[in-house]
Amino acid sequence: MSRSGKLASQGEQRENGRQQILDVIRASEHIARIDIAKATGVSPATVTALTSELLNAGLICEVAPEGNTEGRRGRPRVGLAIRGDAHRIAGIKVARRLISIVITDFAGHEIVHHELALDTGRMPAQVLAQEIHRALKETCKLGGFPIADLSGVGLGLAGMIDAPRNFVYWSSSLEERNIHFAAVLEEILPCPVFLDNDANLVAKAEHLFGAGRNCDNFIVITIEHGVGMGVVIDGKIYRGTKGCGTEFGHTKVQLEGALCQCGQRGCLEAYVGDYALLREANISSGGERYQTLASLFSAAQKGDAMAQSVLDRARRMFALGLANVVNIFDPGKIILAGARLSFDHLYSDRVIDEMQQWIVDVDAPMPEILVHDWGDLMWAKGAAAYAIEEVSALTVKRLAGAAG
Amino acid sequence: MSRSGKLASQGEQRENGRQQILDVIRASEHIARIDIAKATGVSPATVTALTSELLNAGLICEVAPEGNTEGRRGRPRVGLAIRGDAHRIAGIKVARRLISIVITDFAGHEIVHHELALDTGRMPAQVLAQEIHRALKETCKLGGFPIADLSGVGLGLAGMIDAPRNFVYWSSSLEERNIHFAAVLEEILPCPVFLDNDANLVAKAEHLFGAGRNCDNFIVITIEHGVGMGVVIDGKIYRGTKGCGTEFGHTKVQLEGALCQCGQRGCLEAYVGDYALLREANISSGGERYQTLASLFSAAQKGDAMAQSVLDRARRMFALGLANVVNIFDPGKIILAGARLSFDHLYSDRVIDEMQQWIVDVDAPMPEILVHDWGDLMWAKGAAAYAIEEVSALTVKRLAGAAG
Repeated sequence: MSRSGKLASQGEQRENGRQQILDVIRASEHIARIDIAKATGVSPATVTALTSELLNAGLICEVAPEGNTEGRRGRPRVGLAIRGDAHRIAGIKVARRLISIVITDFAGHEIVHHELALDTGRMPAQVLAQEIHRALKETCKLGGFPIADLSGVGLGLAGMIDAPRNFVYWSSSLEERNIHFAAVLEEILPCPVFLDNDANLVAKAEHLFGAGRNCDNFIVITIEHGVGMGVVIDGKIYRGTKGCGTEFGHTKVQLEGALCQCGQRGCLEAYVGDYALLREANISSGGERYQTLASLFSAAQKGDAMAQSVLDRARRMFALGLANVVNIFDPGKIILAGARLSFDHLYSDRVIDEMQQWIVDVDAPMPEILVHDWGDLMWAKGAAAYAIEEVSALTVKRLAGAAG
Repeated sequence: MSRSGKLASQGEQRENGRQQILDVIRASEHIARIDIAKATGVSPATVTALTSELLNAGLICEVAPEGNTEGRRGRPRVGLAIRGDAHRIAGIKVARRLISIVITDFAGHEIVHHELALDTGRMPAQVLAQEIHRALKETCKLGGFPIADLSGVGLGLAGMIDAPRNFVYWSSSLEERNIHFAAVLEEILPCPVFLDNDANLVAKAEHLFGAGRNCDNFIVITIEHGVGMGVVIDGKIYRGTKGCGTEFGHTKVQLEGALCQCGQRGCLEAYVGDYALLREANISSGGERYQTLASLFSAAQKGDAMAQSVLDRARRMFALGLANVVNIFDPGKIILAGARLSFDHLYSDRVIDEMQQWIVDVDAPMPEILVHDWGDLMWAKGAAAYAIEEVSALTVKRLAGAAG
């Protein structure tokens, strides 16, 4: 129990009961009422009453009993399942030059996905909102239904996002700072919008259908243009008190160190980000020899000592940052997620070995380190999963308002 | 709800109910049954049944109604309070050369406290256990009761402690590594022993009766011989998956930096610990000029540029470490706890100003930073508070076993 927080009132308990039941049904694909009662601790009578409300609201449906029912007395148990048709939900990831969209049903099954290029990485909120609107319309058209069918949109952005307030402190995709970007979108979209930091949505996706399934304490590190982190504690995304938590790329690894694009010095990102590597490589090569990370990487593979030294330092700094994360969180698992496995200076066994040298020396197993190679569409699936949860909560709240 | 975790069974719910009721009574000093029902969401009938069990077990008592009861119809409400006499609990902090003990009643009120010097800082487990036994006997004697009266002992040690397992990976107070030190103590003490990392117990003390009251998300940084951290998330101490979490002093602030007493390089502690400062100062002064931090500090105050530069670097490294903590946790509050306020290079406004420069630039209020000057006895009070919680839980579990 939280000491300063009050425990739930009886009305809240009933609302929590509806939400718990919906969560259990979602996690189970289909499940009998009596098993819901066992799983939630809610009494069978209350389960019957609350599931009846959820059935009437169209959120769940009854499914015929299946499997081996021999040897069980009485009539076969009817299962309950999420009614996929109840809602259509969009998940969106805005990357530097790409909008990735997936549309799922309320059970989380993909209906259609689509990707659109963006001309620039950073733009005014009104412009990005129009781009997202256009991309969503195109995606719905591909799926064969109008955009008005959408019940909710989840959106992942890089930057500092206060998810509970749907508020963007800043994002590398937006020119404005301190903007209620969900409200901007909701003016032109037909449904509520739920914002979150993109790395948090990767963590959610890993938790629901990736390498974090059945694990309630793990950390996801994402490496793209920047470095992101999502932290799952006791099954929930940890966000900090103002939504600014679990910043990793801008933790400092050197006092007065390399200049970062954020304007501060010594950030991890200023040692491992693409721009940082190219800056280093081109200074020491005395020109503009390297335009892409691929060319730098290829030079290192061909034995160029300078290129190797640039990548070596990035690797060691990244290992140091990872070791700090382990020292601070003692996670059960760390998932390195990204689509850059070919640039293996950040994903190699040497990173793990070096990290291990910098973890406080304890005779306990190391956290499991997994590398999960995935693209922007999987980030979008995380955004859809987040929106499904939020739409569920809104619907349950509405039911609670009606039922009292 | 945790996805992979099951919700509580009805038996567990009843056990949780007893614990919640006990927690609410403890937090309220005294409270009427009907207000317990409101605060916990447990039905009034169940509150009556469960409080009756707790009364019969002698854990709580009825107190006469007090205050202004005019204008309230019906008979005055009887309050329930923790029965202080139910248990005597000891809290112990083992510092480098000192054992500090406080004995409280079950309501947390201090009965007696005592401190004993230790000859050495580090010793075999059997020896430290004997020292603790001797110190406890002396303290009980001062309190006028036998050691057999103790129902539980909470013990804070520096180092890596897996509290749920009562296990010490290593501690600067113990020669052995990987030892069930609680079991060693329980062989000679008459009651269960509950171990925790000392900084966690400071966090608990701050939460229960210090600067963290009514705050469910805050961080305590302790500066003594080493640097410790306790993190409270949602009202609970965060420990990590193996009890090795929230290590701060050995996070790395420089790649291949200064050698730390842990054997690794670049740890924060290797820049801000006493030994690190004296090492620096004596190297640059070409001898053994400084034997104590006080002499170094006094030289700096008198304008010695080298002494100032040593303290300046420590301050900047500490500010960098604090900024990383803020970037990672986004806490509502940071409490700097220690008894070293005279050495203000680590507690000054300049530390806060520099930290602020290294926090990701967001237009949101900074976390509140408090300095709380306290000594080892307050750490011991945290240990007692932890033991009270654990003894409560054991007693409630026993009641649950009896009541089914």
